[in-house]
Amino acid sequence: MNDTFLKACFGEKVEYTPVWIMRQAGRYLPQYQAMRANVDFLTLCKTPELAAEVTLQPIEILGVDAAILFSDILIPVEAMGMHLEFSDKSGPILSEPVRNKSSVDRLIIPDAEDDMPFVIEAIKILREKLRNKVPLIGFSGAPFTLATYMIEGGSSKHFIHAKKMMFQNNRLFNYLMEKLSFTIISYLSAQIKAGAQAVQIFDTWAGVLSPSDYKISVLPHVKKVISELKKEGVPIIYFVNDCAGILKEVKKSGADVIGIDWKVDMADAIKQLGKKMVVQGNLDPCALFLSKEEIEERVKDILWKGEAAKGHIFNLGHGILPETPVENAIALVEAVHKYGRRG
Amino acid sequence: MNDTFLKACFGEKVEYTPVWIMRQAGRYLPQYQAMRANVDFLTLCKTPELAAEVTLQPIEILGVDAAILFSDILIPVEAMGMHLEFSDKSGPILSEPVRNKSSVDRLIIPDAEDDMPFVIEAIKILREKLRNKVPLIGFSGAPFTLATYMIEGGSSKHFIHAKKMMFQNNRLFNYLMEKLSFTIISYLSAQIKAGAQAVQIFDTWAGVLSPSDYKISVLPHVKKVISELKKEGVPIIYFVNDCAGILKEVKKSGADVIGIDWKVDMADAIKQLGKKMVVQGNLDPCALFLSKEEIEERVKDILWKGEAAKGHIFNLGHGILPETPVENAIALVEAVHKYGRRG
Repeated sequence: MNDTFLKACFGEKVEYTPVWIMRQAGRYLPQYQAMRANVDFLTLCKTPELAAEVTLQPIEILGVDAAILFSDILIPVEAMGMHLEFSDKSGPILSEPVRNKSSVDRLIIPDAEDDMPFVIEAIKILREKLRNKVPLIGFSGAPFTLATYMIEGGSSKHFIHAKKMMFQNNRLFNYLMEKLSFTIISYLSAQIKAGAQAVQIFDTWAGVLSPSDYKISVLPHVKKVISELKKEGVPIIYFVNDCAGILKEVKKSGADVIGIDWKVDMADAIKQLGKKMVVQGNLDPCALFLSKEEIEERVKDILWKGEAAKGHIFNLGHGILPETPVENAIALVEAVHKYGRRG
Repeated sequence: MNDTFLKACFGEKVEYTPVWIMRQAGRYLPQYQAMRANVDFLTLCKTPELAAEVTLQPIEILGVDAAILFSDILIPVEAMGMHLEFSDKSGPILSEPVRNKSSVDRLIIPDAEDDMPFVIEAIKILREKLRNKVPLIGFSGAPFTLATYMIEGGSSKHFIHAKKMMFQNNRLFNYLMEKLSFTIISYLSAQIKAGAQAVQIFDTWAGVLSPSDYKISVLPHVKKVISELKKEGVPIIYFVNDCAGILKEVKKSGADVIGIDWKVDMADAIKQLGKKMVVQGNLDPCALFLSKEEIEERVKDILWKGEAAKGHIFNLGHGILPETPVENAIALVEAVHKYGRRG
């Protein structure tokens, strides 16, 4: 079994630096596009055999050291009782955004086995098909990131409604964050029980907050989720986009691994997180438009800086872009394996 | 004359902490909306009497310590020869984006007096009408920020075309950045000659780059622009949005004042910029949806942290939002004047 990724998560010695790529199963792969020609995005997420198939595609094609379940961060939000649709132009749409007490009251804390059985089933299929070739990562959105979609009713530019609730009705905001935290704990526990060997919590929008708002209104919920999940014994990765200004707080999350975006220098991030932390990241996804030689140079630079941390899992600083040439993603994985840590 | 703002820019002792607000002339003001009911955005920018009128509106209403010319950062881009339109939905549209050598060749370096006479005229009217009540700030977009609009053809999410050019054709990217730098130097020099008593350079999108890309491909152009403008003798403010990860580089820009967004703690920013720097910022624009008491508390916190710097000009960390209650913007200005530096 290739357990390099899991060892690295726990800061143990590894033979080489493991690498996987956020959104590694997806639109940049012709094999995925072929699948999507016949089935819409949400149906794909909800059909275990198909979700498992696209999850496996990049394992062979790229040679990455971990698989990550193909799904969407809004799946548990739908299971909480909201109506979810995807528009090609504006992304996810949650009709009837959550903006008052009665709409938070109505949200249920879903039971993954009953309310999202397709996720559990996909994980079981994947563990069987992977035959321990590489570990399987489960995932969820973080409480604040899911809250923004629920309050805004979809994607947002300035997050005015979410911040207004946080600022003007902190009791209601906390009530929603608590329901989300319970949902995430239960959802990820079920994923782990079904076979997920690590979990990543995506805080895509935490970086739109001032450090003090993050510290006061968001971090306590993240800490609670992570401390509950720690009981399950698998590594917990906390990815925070636009983390540069809040790393000192993110450090306190309790996660085994901190995933960072590309807008902070790896050396600076490690300085702020401390050398006892395991880090994941952080190549700019757009760097995959460079030549293979230049990708190699950038990989070497990040690997070299990453040596200062207790452990390093290589990744992009955000999801791979649909326009990315597949051969450059392959070149990235090869470069990490060639130039990473040794023993 | 109220020269508190100018003194603060140069790090001189002031009687109180000066404050102005990015986008202080604009959509949150009913007086501005009344004007816009009869005239479209670009016509407003290009009619000196009207541009001057909206520039002056917040001076009386808010009691801020500086006026900033009402204009748009894409005005010089249009003067360089691109076709500019504003769509209500997707913002600015520059048809025929700049993506090859011949399209950069075609760009002219405009002469502000000939090609943007309305800007020069508005500044002259403003200096007369202001009668030194408060200083007048001129402004321009920074080279990279203007380049992104020109290369993408408008606003962008991932800046793929801009980064592709930077990565795949750095010579072409530099050629464009050089033309932009010359344009900005000439444009801001003309504004200063016409009467602008300080200038702000807006680098709204510099924060989408990795620190090393910013350092290698953007900072040299910023330094060149600032060192040329220094000869004019007025303070130069360099505002960088999403600056948290690149502050150590931004510090080297040569600007008199560094404007920071709200996603970095003021104390951390000063630690990185050094205590000899004058800072501007950095309240979250969404904080203006709080109660007046809570706005006051946040203002006090930033003022307190700002004391560590050589000088502090209070501002939001980004433009004021259209939904902002005017009375809260007034409360912000009053709180800064009440609790800021003394002598």
